[in-house]
Amino acid sequence: MTGTRTPRDAAPTEIIDATTRTVEQDAGRAQALFRATGSGGDGVRSDIRIGEHAVLVDEPPALGGGNAAPNPVQFALASLLSCQVVTYRFRAARLGIPLDDMQVDVEGDLDVRGFFGLDDDVRPGFGAVRLVVGLRGQASEEDYQRRREAVDAHCPVLDLVRHPTPVTTRATS
Amino acid sequence: MTGTRTPRDAAPTEIIDATTRTVEQDAGRAQALFRATGSGGDGVRSDIRIGEHAVLVDEPPALGGGNAAPNPVQFALASLLSCQVVTYRFRAARLGIPLDDMQVDVEGDLDVRGFFGLDDDVRPGFGAVRLVVGLRGQASEEDYQRRREAVDAHCPVLDLVRHPTPVTTRATS
Repeated sequence: MTGTRTPRDAAPTEIIDATTRTVEQDAGRAQALFRATGSGGDGVRSDIRIGEHAVLVDEPPALGGGNAAPNPVQFALASLLSCQVVTYRFRAARLGIPLDDMQVDVEGDLDVRGFFGLDDDVRPGFGAVRLVVGLRGQASEEDYQRRREAVDAHCPVLDLVRHPTPVTTRATS
Repeated sequence: MTGTRTPRDAAPTEIIDATTRTVEQDAGRAQALFRATGSGGDGVRSDIRIGEHAVLVDEPPALGGGNAAPNPVQFALASLLSCQVVTYRFRAARLGIPLDDMQVDVEGDLDVRGFFGLDDDVRPGFGAVRLVVGLRGQASEEDYQRRREAVDAHCPVLDLVRHPTPVTTRATS
């Protein structure tokens, strides 16, 4: 994130306070740029670099891969799952609700006729996604419900999935 | 994918043919279900299982993590990048356009005021995403352009990013 100065492994409340102060002083410092770069390797796999991290993405044999790693749409679900975890942690801290463990299950329905171009009325992406979040802690049912609504309103990847995001694409050779 | 019978590491053209035959016989076999399951561990990290694969997601220190892995929105970009690779490979095979190497760069702008709840007019997700795909092979510029349009119309994760997808969320305790 751009411009925040926080201690390593700071607790969410400290980060919220520090970010609030930083952004109040200069809203421009709220602007973050995230990047990934990768190459198409053998078959359908991708070798991706994200900062210092390497991520491998593949497909199962039925989609032309060697099953060396999850596939792109599975990573999309993992992205959503993990974003819920982060957002719950931060909103729990902000709302002062105790949260010990979390368990998240996510699934998505995909009709492959869209990807394969076999039916123009079928979208290539997920037709529906379902998220179930198990929360364990010392809070009441009402507190958990309140937290869920706050999380769903502020989760970056849930927003990405639920709402349109403008994308420009360019091919070079 | 549900119900297709293809050889291990089959070429895209064989997979397209096999899937087309399968789906023509029974459209119900085009329905695929993808899943991920995970738990929130120490701090903001997630330990995720996708079939036999384990995926770790973390945050940088400025967002409360230990930087053990990319963060959720970076995985969203990796998902998009890798889905472009798969879709280019399949469309190139379908269109009969030679494609040797691919290089994909993706970036997204995120205003963290949305995630932190500091401004209700700021969305929590990416405000914009930019994709640049470098294609190398023996095709003409026009062929590559034609492929880009076909890919963009059939890429599952690009569809997910560009268009709304219904998501149900449920919290249990």
